[in-house]
Amino acid sequence: MKQKKFILEEKEMPTQWYNIQADMPNKPLPPLHPGTRQPLTWEDLAHIFPAECCKQELNTTDRWIDIPEPVLEKYRFYRSTPMVRAYELEKALGTPAHIYFKNESTNPLGSHKVNSALPQCYYAKQEGTTNVTTETGAGQWGAALSYAASVFGLEAAVYQVKISMLQKPYRSSIMRTFGATVEGSPSMSTRAGKDVITKNPTHMGSLGTAISEAVELAMTTPGCKYTLGSVLNHVALHQSIIGLEAEKQMEKAGEYPDMVIACFGGGSNFGGIAFPFMRHNILDGKKTEFIAAEPESCPKLTRGKFEYDFGDEAGLTPLLPMYTLGHDFRPANIHAGGLRYHGAGMIVSQLIKDGLMHGVDIPQLETFEAGVLFARTEGIIPAP
Amino acid sequence: MKQKKFILEEKEMPTQWYNIQADMPNKPLPPLHPGTRQPLTWEDLAHIFPAECCKQELNTTDRWIDIPEPVLEKYRFYRSTPMVRAYELEKALGTPAHIYFKNESTNPLGSHKVNSALPQCYYAKQEGTTNVTTETGAGQWGAALSYAASVFGLEAAVYQVKISMLQKPYRSSIMRTFGATVEGSPSMSTRAGKDVITKNPTHMGSLGTAISEAVELAMTTPGCKYTLGSVLNHVALHQSIIGLEAEKQMEKAGEYPDMVIACFGGGSNFGGIAFPFMRHNILDGKKTEFIAAEPESCPKLTRGKFEYDFGDEAGLTPLLPMYTLGHDFRPANIHAGGLRYHGAGMIVSQLIKDGLMHGVDIPQLETFEAGVLFARTEGIIPAP
Repeated sequence: MKQKKFILEEKEMPTQWYNIQADMPNKPLPPLHPGTRQPLTWEDLAHIFPAECCKQELNTTDRWIDIPEPVLEKYRFYRSTPMVRAYELEKALGTPAHIYFKNESTNPLGSHKVNSALPQCYYAKQEGTTNVTTETGAGQWGAALSYAASVFGLEAAVYQVKISMLQKPYRSSIMRTFGATVEGSPSMSTRAGKDVITKNPTHMGSLGTAISEAVELAMTTPGCKYTLGSVLNHVALHQSIIGLEAEKQMEKAGEYPDMVIACFGGGSNFGGIAFPFMRHNILDGKKTEFIAAEPESCPKLTRGKFEYDFGDEAGLTPLLPMYTLGHDFRPANIHAGGLRYHGAGMIVSQLIKDGLMHGVDIPQLETFEAGVLFARTEGIIPAP
Repeated sequence: MKQKKFILEEKEMPTQWYNIQADMPNKPLPPLHPGTRQPLTWEDLAHIFPAECCKQELNTTDRWIDIPEPVLEKYRFYRSTPMVRAYELEKALGTPAHIYFKNESTNPLGSHKVNSALPQCYYAKQEGTTNVTTETGAGQWGAALSYAASVFGLEAAVYQVKISMLQKPYRSSIMRTFGATVEGSPSMSTRAGKDVITKNPTHMGSLGTAISEAVELAMTTPGCKYTLGSVLNHVALHQSIIGLEAEKQMEKAGEYPDMVIACFGGGSNFGGIAFPFMRHNILDGKKTEFIAAEPESCPKLTRGKFEYDFGDEAGLTPLLPMYTLGHDFRPANIHAGGLRYHGAGMIVSQLIKDGLMHGVDIPQLETFEAGVLFARTEGIIPAP
């Protein structure tokens, strides 16, 4: 019988993250201070984020970064995740391709997000932070952050895109199970939220607005730091655990990928699986193709502009060099749940400019059909 | 670093199920024909169930039964499931005990139910069946059955306890993703459902009623067989894959359990983890304690009567010898979602009579508190 799943033993698990910034032929442009338009130092960023994350954010020299022991210990709760050969999907598609998928749904809270929530909360705690805050769309990141905060003894406050909170009420129950406070965004609890509601009383939220609220809370609350689930370089760094495992698992399967495909919202999932393989394109002359699949309803990679833009709606974040649809982008309510962030992250944006990867945009109904096919063949219902 | 998870390689996976009936000091009493009160043969049962399942149901001689190759192949999609040492829970409880849990949540559809749904659908298909039907409470069994039916090319119709369908609308979406028809029970689509609604127009359903509807559909539809997710002997047989894996995993951990504890609805989950270990009590003089945890609101093990009773509300099933609260038992709506079945299964009932295991009933709020503690320590939110 042919082997279906490839799993690493705990002793085979990676103990370092891979930092693609060290290997990029052109480094990402620096984030800028919105007032002075001067490049920011890690100390500047550390007003909002945990300091260690800020150092990682701007680290363009160290290829490998040690995973702290307490984070490794929590990774072992659920990692490695399975690398699975999708024999049934191959059969249904009638393709000669060998299709593998990395199944991050076996993680606590059901997504890859916990891989970065754990180190962000760990570093925050180490630095004397007592409270963390963040935004979430459909709730995966908010749930992961709530869990990680509870693991490391931090209070958590989550701003969830209001329409998502109403559409998926169980998601806030999950966050509250771990002791987090959940607020629908835009809310009346911040200046940024009030401004949005004043201008548009029926605004049902966007990730950009929720980020504004969380950043404002962090800036105005002593002992509180902001955490982000995607887009930023240090998040992609933490998520590299996915691709590093996948590399070892593909080796066990006796294969090396011709293509790596991942869905793309802010880039945490994509970067996680792609960057460790991409280093072999950069360093070892491999020719793997890297494809980021984005929703047609939020096509920043395929139809956005590369420019400096804010990471949030209210303009509280640094200016980031990225492919963007504009920080005032507001998805249709039905689409606001996830993957509809206006910007693409600094590393990914540079990699696209340099031709190391490319985006494709996929229409909604095609995505649903593919999801149903995957469910019926491989037994897992994916988030569309 | 101490090992957290114990996982079997695909080549270490069990290839046979364990049939505890062969080893029981006293065999279960036979199921009876409701009219004649004569013991039923497998041929009698085969009017409702797939024939191979009926043979397994009454098989009191073969200790080991081969898992068919196509079922093994599907098991490899997700098995083995992890056996996890709950270090954090131990710490929170301040206990010297070593606590391990078998994590069946990594299965397709998120529960152990798929372990029996796959063989039941496989056998049905082999025997020329075109349609299968069943009942479900919260939806785990219905979802697993819908998936398994789609895997083996069968049509599926699921009667879901109406209050559960309304409380958890995503669950029927899951079943429909796999092509199943889902009907809230009691429904107007069967005589049994109509009778219940006529007597009580606001009846929001019970597992007993939903079973009546599904059995009636199977009896009145050519090419349609009924499948059941728990209670029956062949279901416990299929679920023995859980305990057989656990045994090998405990061996890797260098341990043998003093206690095996599992939640109890109809007995599929409990029997799955417990029976393979129980054979060593029966055959090898081990002294493991086996505890079935049932809800205080449906205390059939601790306060039910041992007698012949119907498996369903309308009295369409055979008479089964079991601990029961009476086949007209109707849980409060808020409790109807799961684990609230009136009867206990023939094997388990006999084992309790013979002192090989015992039940405990747990109040709801205590269960919720334990669930939150488990979530915060081990990162998994269990169904309460």
